[in-house]
Amino acid sequence: MSAPSEVRTDSLLVRAMRRRPVPTTPVWFMRQAGRSLPEYRALRTEVGMLEACTRPDLVTEITLQPVRRHRVDAAILFSDIVLPLRAAGVDLDIVAGVGPVVAAPVRSAADVAALPALDAGQIGFIDEAVRSLVGELGPTPLIGFAGAPFTLASYLVEGGPSKDHARTKALMHGEPELWHALLAHLAGVTTTFLRVQAAAGASALQLFDSWAGALSAADYATYVLPHSRAVLGALADTGVPLVHFGVGTGELLRLLGEAGADVVGVDWRVPLDEASRRIGPDRAVQGNLDPALLRAGWPVVEREVRRVLAEGRAAPGHVFNLGHGVPPETDPDVLTRVVELVHSVPRD
Amino acid sequence: MSAPSEVRTDSLLVRAMRRRPVPTTPVWFMRQAGRSLPEYRALRTEVGMLEACTRPDLVTEITLQPVRRHRVDAAILFSDIVLPLRAAGVDLDIVAGVGPVVAAPVRSAADVAALPALDAGQIGFIDEAVRSLVGELGPTPLIGFAGAPFTLASYLVEGGPSKDHARTKALMHGEPELWHALLAHLAGVTTTFLRVQAAAGASALQLFDSWAGALSAADYATYVLPHSRAVLGALADTGVPLVHFGVGTGELLRLLGEAGADVVGVDWRVPLDEASRRIGPDRAVQGNLDPALLRAGWPVVEREVRRVLAEGRAAPGHVFNLGHGVPPETDPDVLTRVVELVHSVPRD
Repeated sequence: MSAPSEVRTDSLLVRAMRRRPVPTTPVWFMRQAGRSLPEYRALRTEVGMLEACTRPDLVTEITLQPVRRHRVDAAILFSDIVLPLRAAGVDLDIVAGVGPVVAAPVRSAADVAALPALDAGQIGFIDEAVRSLVGELGPTPLIGFAGAPFTLASYLVEGGPSKDHARTKALMHGEPELWHALLAHLAGVTTTFLRVQAAAGASALQLFDSWAGALSAADYATYVLPHSRAVLGALADTGVPLVHFGVGTGELLRLLGEAGADVVGVDWRVPLDEASRRIGPDRAVQGNLDPALLRAGWPVVEREVRRVLAEGRAAPGHVFNLGHGVPPETDPDVLTRVVELVHSVPRD
Repeated sequence: MSAPSEVRTDSLLVRAMRRRPVPTTPVWFMRQAGRSLPEYRALRTEVGMLEACTRPDLVTEITLQPVRRHRVDAAILFSDIVLPLRAAGVDLDIVAGVGPVVAAPVRSAADVAALPALDAGQIGFIDEAVRSLVGELGPTPLIGFAGAPFTLASYLVEGGPSKDHARTKALMHGEPELWHALLAHLAGVTTTFLRVQAAAGASALQLFDSWAGALSAADYATYVLPHSRAVLGALADTGVPLVHFGVGTGELLRLLGEAGADVVGVDWRVPLDEASRRIGPDRAVQGNLDPALLRAGWPVVEREVRRVLAEGRAAPGHVFNLGHGVPPETDPDVLTRVVELVHSVPRD
């Protein structure tokens, strides 16, 4: 094992994720790379979202920007949830102000059968971006990233973002065999996408199930959990810690832990001590500062950061983060101050 | 007390809300009056939303439509959450495809001080609509309706609908005295709006806190609960059962019960037996069929209706409903079949 790799394995981030003692709590922010940073907005003025995600030079630069600026304890690969589908050959685009739009929604057995698999050879640009990043980052670990099968399925079935996921839920309940075939396929796509990132040197992997919180625990357990578990199980031999996260998942925290991740992400609705009780002692937690409060002025932010850190001490491992992504309107200086504050508080 | 009033007090709905034995479970649907009905869409082609809510003839007709069609056990006053603000004199409109838009958002102490109170004399049209409806409905009870102080505050502070309620949360945490002054004022508006409905003959009142699920339990308890409790407390002497509901409130169910309602509404994420455990034995429950499943085909709908009824037996009282409003795309015939099915299953 090379020296930089050893350094990354011994990073604050990986140690906290492994529930090992750390002097201070590691901190990064979901969507730290992106619209809250002027240097990102400047780069993106003439480049579409999906193009930005597929050019290794841009992925590297955008991923590094928040590390340089905020001195966070991890980079997170700049990517998009639907990117592996597009790389596999699904006709989709990201439309500004709308989100991902799928040209031909997937709703029949024939549609599912026609879905292309993802071959590692189709994401050479991810391999290249991760290797470039690992070189640039030195001792700072890179977190790989992919959307979970349920969230990918919702985009495919609805044809785009949906508030109520009605077509997705109709397929799930009305044609469970077809549903499971679809999710099994997507689990394969997600697994390939994440394995390439681990092989190229990512120090941890986050499986992001954006929409899981739209489901009851019973539906999640029956229709989703087996497929997220398949992804996480297929990544166990990579040896890197695995994070699983969704929003609005208070009812699902125990199940998210059972999916096989080392770390369960928690939004702002459930305090970390209570979340850790639900998830159990064998998992670290990540979260849960309310991103909306980043605009409430420093005294409020400081009080909330200290509260999250205090409640996080009840968990066997804690990675400081927001309860959801950085809102685009966030003042980046507030994030930098949050990092400094988190680093100033002793943990173990 | 007049004969029709006695009949309404002894209705299936009120008995279930009072946790008294009922032969079958009463059923109505949030947003049963509205866009899912072709007869509603026909009426609304040339009338704006706020105009429709302020014309007693239209309110009466729109409120009666789903009762005629589905034979539900209750009517719910056709209204809009922001209507009492508009009636009090706040400059706002409902913009198609957007929602309520407030001309001058409320963010400073001067803004709060300038907010008009609502006088019962300003909502004579509500008094008239309710009296007309009570006459038309005969033995079928009418449920009165208003938005809760927090949800009204979010519209006023944000200036319209918001995904993350960032300005609202910033005000709440950053200027708690101003926040409490705002919510106390809005509690007065809501109380007046609901008292007029009770005085005109409504058989029950629902306080709807659309956005409460965006809050952690700690924030809800500190910044919202006292004001919802003030509203419900001020309505206790009306003698009609009170319902309190929000979406995504798994973490808040116990607190929603403590606000003083007789019935707590539950969305589709928490099964009614578990919800009733959290809420406690002194409250009935209402909900929790997943509205998205109304489009999943009858076998799925039937299975889910039977599951909700079975789980509802664990609660001391159960009013069948959806976990949120009727989606506009719903086939109304499915709702009619749901009513027939609910009525075919014995309860006590």
